[in-house]
Amino acid sequence: MGDLSTLFAPQRVAVVGASDEDGTVGHAITSNLLSEFDGETVAVNPNREEVLGLRCHDSVADVPDVDVAIVVVPAPIALQVLREAAEAGIEDVVVITAGFSEAGGDGSSRESELLAIAEEYDLNVVGPNSLGIMSTSVGMNATFGPRSADPGNISFMSQSGAFITAVLDWAADHDIGFRDIVSLGNKAVLDEVDFVEQWGSDPDTDVILGYLEDVNDGQEFIEAAYEVTRETPIVAVKSGRTEAGASAAASHTGAIAGSDQAYEAGFKQAGVLRVESVQELFDFASVLDGQPLPDNEGVAIVTNAGGPGVMTTDAVGDSRLQLADFEESTLDELSDSLPEESNIFNPVDVIGDATVERFSTAIEIALADPGVGMVVVLACPTATLSFEGLADETVRLQAEYGTPIAATLMGGSATEPAADKLREAGIPTYFDPARAVNSLDALAEYAEIKRRDRIEATTFDVDQARAREILESAVDRGRTQLGVESMELLDAYGIPTPQGEVVDSPGDAERIAGEIEGDVVMKIVSPDISHKSDIGGVEVGVAQEDVRDSYEDIVVRARNYQPDASIVGVQVQEMVDLDTGTETIVGVSRDPQFGPLVMFGLGGIFVEVMEDTSFRVAPVAEPEVREMFDEIKSAPLLRGARGREPADLDALVETIQRVSQLVTDFPAITELDINPVVAMPDGVAAIDLRLTLDQEKL
Amino acid sequence: MGDLSTLFAPQRVAVVGASDEDGTVGHAITSNLLSEFDGETVAVNPNREEVLGLRCHDSVADVPDVDVAIVVVPAPIALQVLREAAEAGIEDVVVITAGFSEAGGDGSSRESELLAIAEEYDLNVVGPNSLGIMSTSVGMNATFGPRSADPGNISFMSQSGAFITAVLDWAADHDIGFRDIVSLGNKAVLDEVDFVEQWGSDPDTDVILGYLEDVNDGQEFIEAAYEVTRETPIVAVKSGRTEAGASAAASHTGAIAGSDQAYEAGFKQAGVLRVESVQELFDFASVLDGQPLPDNEGVAIVTNAGGPGVMTTDAVGDSRLQLADFEESTLDELSDSLPEESNIFNPVDVIGDATVERFSTAIEIALADPGVGMVVVLACPTATLSFEGLADETVRLQAEYGTPIAATLMGGSATEPAADKLREAGIPTYFDPARAVNSLDALAEYAEIKRRDRIEATTFDVDQARAREILESAVDRGRTQLGVESMELLDAYGIPTPQGEVVDSPGDAERIAGEIEGDVVMKIVSPDISHKSDIGGVEVGVAQEDVRDSYEDIVVRARNYQPDASIVGVQVQEMVDLDTGTETIVGVSRDPQFGPLVMFGLGGIFVEVMEDTSFRVAPVAEPEVREMFDEIKSAPLLRGARGREPADLDALVETIQRVSQLVTDFPAITELDINPVVAMPDGVAAIDLRLTLDQEKL
Repeated sequence: MGDLSTLFAPQRVAVVGASDEDGTVGHAITSNLLSEFDGETVAVNPNREEVLGLRCHDSVADVPDVDVAIVVVPAPIALQVLREAAEAGIEDVVVITAGFSEAGGDGSSRESELLAIAEEYDLNVVGPNSLGIMSTSVGMNATFGPRSADPGNISFMSQSGAFITAVLDWAADHDIGFRDIVSLGNKAVLDEVDFVEQWGSDPDTDVILGYLEDVNDGQEFIEAAYEVTRETPIVAVKSGRTEAGASAAASHTGAIAGSDQAYEAGFKQAGVLRVESVQELFDFASVLDGQPLPDNEGVAIVTNAGGPGVMTTDAVGDSRLQLADFEESTLDELSDSLPEESNIFNPVDVIGDATVERFSTAIEIALADPGVGMVVVLACPTATLSFEGLADETVRLQAEYGTPIAATLMGGSATEPAADKLREAGIPTYFDPARAVNSLDALAEYAEIKRRDRIEATTFDVDQARAREILESAVDRGRTQLGVESMELLDAYGIPTPQGEVVDSPGDAERIAGEIEGDVVMKIVSPDISHKSDIGGVEVGVAQEDVRDSYEDIVVRARNYQPDASIVGVQVQEMVDLDTGTETIVGVSRDPQFGPLVMFGLGGIFVEVMEDTSFRVAPVAEPEVREMFDEIKSAPLLRGARGREPADLDALVETIQRVSQLVTDFPAITELDINPVVAMPDGVAAIDLRLTLDQEKL
Repeated sequence: MGDLSTLFAPQRVAVVGASDEDGTVGHAITSNLLSEFDGETVAVNPNREEVLGLRCHDSVADVPDVDVAIVVVPAPIALQVLREAAEAGIEDVVVITAGFSEAGGDGSSRESELLAIAEEYDLNVVGPNSLGIMSTSVGMNATFGPRSADPGNISFMSQSGAFITAVLDWAADHDIGFRDIVSLGNKAVLDEVDFVEQWGSDPDTDVILGYLEDVNDGQEFIEAAYEVTRETPIVAVKSGRTEAGASAAASHTGAIAGSDQAYEAGFKQAGVLRVESVQELFDFASVLDGQPLPDNEGVAIVTNAGGPGVMTTDAVGDSRLQLADFEESTLDELSDSLPEESNIFNPVDVIGDATVERFSTAIEIALADPGVGMVVVLACPTATLSFEGLADETVRLQAEYGTPIAATLMGGSATEPAADKLREAGIPTYFDPARAVNSLDALAEYAEIKRRDRIEATTFDVDQARAREILESAVDRGRTQLGVESMELLDAYGIPTPQGEVVDSPGDAERIAGEIEGDVVMKIVSPDISHKSDIGGVEVGVAQEDVRDSYEDIVVRARNYQPDASIVGVQVQEMVDLDTGTETIVGVSRDPQFGPLVMFGLGGIFVEVMEDTSFRVAPVAEPEVREMFDEIKSAPLLRGARGREPADLDALVETIQRVSQLVTDFPAITELDINPVVAMPDGVAAIDLRLTLDQEKL
């Protein structure tokens, strides 16, 4: 697959399956193209002479210099058409035809064949099972939807064709314009990553929007979106968030999406603004398209109504934003300019009898305050205020100061002319002040994403060969569930473990204990026994002289408890001071789309009962690990709450990074749990390990 | 204050301060009344002969049979007018005039005087500082706002006049009608409780809406709203939720609201649906006004578009609702009626080429399923579907089955005629499916509120006299901060405490220990020492023979640590088995509006770090206490998570109820912390106590 710029700016488009029979897809696409396309539309249909005034060709191969072929022929012959197009040198094909993987049965093998042809000829294929594509830059509506997009700078991809139709119908009434639109269909060849990359490098796309039910390759998506969001914001709905939604999505597109935690983490790492509703999707798109990014997160609210001002302030309190703290000089100026009954403190209340002039003076004074990064202009209808006049002033001041503004005009249709003026200038305006604040919040969030430093996961100097040896030898012995006997794997990756070893005789136990200073911990090691403490399989604080006896006792108890259990031996381990340490858990699962997903949380109750966890897709970079600490509510316990000594966070960060490197290096590790990793004031210790291997991937 | 029905249905209304000078409040109100009021408008103004064609009277006392006086004269003479009105036998007065408590200074004393007059004459006074009142039942717009309400069944009170103006302007475009509206102003006399009661008993009010920045008396509010919500839903915004918002509210109306936890708890106990945004306020009002309540919480989604169906399903997943599980017969019928490519499982996808007939057949089959309590009809624009036809069918089916329906017509202005038909029938319709689901969720929540059994707080047989003695004797000794030395207070209220006593000599310590079986716990008792363990002020597991020595040691350590500390003695207490028990905290603070606010959470980290707490306003009834357990995330630990023995929840419930009774009986207890209350498998034990007294209230 190459560059997609021709796909969205072709000079000649062929509709293969063009028809003049009303109600057919071939008719709809051909007439949509004919109505506005700047380039040439070519009709292909061996059964017709002419379609909608166009001479009809028997094959797409009969027409020279076709840039894009739109395939609407029935599924059984679509592949043949695809091959003909490819042979004729066409690089971009949109397969509208349904009856591929979404239909199951034959459809799936048909889709595999489609993919094979695309690979053979290096074709860009949209679909199959797509509504089509649009590009307002060349007036192209190559969809069978009833409506064309208005021009604009938002590019939009959707895994639902109906959603595109709905959005276009609605957007026309809401002054929302688009640049390129693609209905992704089954994403057999081109997927979200390709369009993210295409639009990321398109100077005329200001915002990328997505409706996604899954992503094909999470790692690729993160990489592509991470780069693109440094310049262009991406806002996306990932539907099927909830259990019910995920199963509905599976029956809709056949998308078996991985865990929502993986999407949540992956989108965050990619810098994608994830939204949950259609309203937010377009609220965010509009503000990102229309307003500059804020310099800081201080919001000034200027209103002529106290009550709505309070509601707006609550919305600020709910967001990442803060009410700007005005400088003395700002307060003085407001005090000089406003009547005595006004409130000069933020939220500024210019009160009910304010004119446009007074309102605008207050807005300008607020804009001039260096602590004000954003402004909400909030007006209720009064006898003295002209909404249109206020809109004009707001537009002027926004342009003059270059500070983002969102407006709330709390009224009905009388506010429309004013709202139109604001929207034309890219200033979002709503009845509900919470939406205005939420939109500014999105701007601030994107500003933060854009400011991110380039981050790369650290690659530590580890003994990968030794790790492979350990894993391979386990597999050789028929083991795919490993436990503490494989702690050396952690050693190989520089993850601190207490001194100790798994032994299989009382003598060895004594020898190993002898190498350790002080008392030791002894634990039964058996893949078949999970609740070791409950069966007396663990002894803590065993003195050197008791090690031999303890060995025997532990093994006997295990044998009594479960005679058929395979017993690997007994682990003899250095004591770790659990009193000064905090137990944490580092876990990894493997997501079908995103790959290794690292989980962090505090031990036991916090993860299991309180669900106080944070996830990131591996490989994770240092700042991402630190964000994980910020996301768990129990983090103060690591930082020294309640008189505890703070844990060695640097060591913990490094441990999580090393785990991330381990699971990235070995895709064969499908699950891993280090529980606990004890975080002490001076270092950490990984105490216990459970790990599942997929030997096919080793 | 009496019945308010005359206030909202007067026959003769006098405007005191009527004026024909354009731009004045007196002019605006008089002309608003003249334009539509079914009754008679009377102008009062000693400085005019005639106002807007009305003969002007010198005093309200000159006119017989005035039902309501609207006072717009300047503040300095408003009280005189109020008295004249009262003397003339007028019972209902609306004081528009500002310059009372909201203005500070003289205003506050003026407001006290107003209150005194109202009490003297038993007057119903709205305001002062009010926009006025409206009642569409008699065409009365007695406000100075620019717009009258359309008739309807929603009654609306607002602590912001501007918000009323804004809402009316907006509502006119959204087919939302009102019955009564009141701008509460400063709430000197009539407040939210009076209007809740009035509208609760008004058969023509279907929904009560409120914009509140505080409530005057939380306990009264809960009581009144609790009764009313058994018949009439109340939906309210309580603004000033956040810290920033609360301080903005304080500067707006002077409302120093108590903690948001108290409002959250109080509204919940009252059965008030609390919303956070203007959008939700009216979404909920519309659906509650227009749709019946659901029989169950199963939702069927019927759509012609898969993707939006998934989004809708996600919204269901986010709500209290569930996707309905269709019966076999329903699936069979759907399968018989729909094309093969359809999805007969919920969300039902009638697919893109559906006609109104197919859509409506599917809706009807879903409605007939007994597991379907609500339906979302979700349509995207297609060539085959008539939105208006679908609206007609939806209206017909909703009426036939009596099941609540919400619609999502995903399109632009082309959907308007259909949306109008739906709205006219009371079926809410939105572009964003999440709003439709959220509205149904509100219906289900209200259905649950309406179903509640009548609950009363249990009154236990306690020794109130003994408790009073303990508190009084503490106050007599100059103590307002009490600790473990007052554990007997808990005994008096039947709250289990470990056996033991506070003693002030080694001999007494030995004697008390002798009465206790087994080892004891000994703790220093001093109001000046809070971290007792840290200074060696606590000894656990003291054997009988060591009690005397331990007494001396503990006291010496305390003296060394803090020579000026007042030492009450040493507590000698029975050991409580902390290993099988779970430490919980029961705390009480006193909220300025709601009074005693009971907090419950698990000990230490869970409350302090995880903020895992639940609040209720006392007195709390048993089911409310059980709800508190449901609200904390750590509750599984009480219920026996991770192999623990379950705690004695009944004993814990009773303890919290008894604490509630104690703080209700003694308003002098301004703060109380029982930390920990150890919840054991067989009973609970209150181990430690801190309590603050306000001696004025004893």
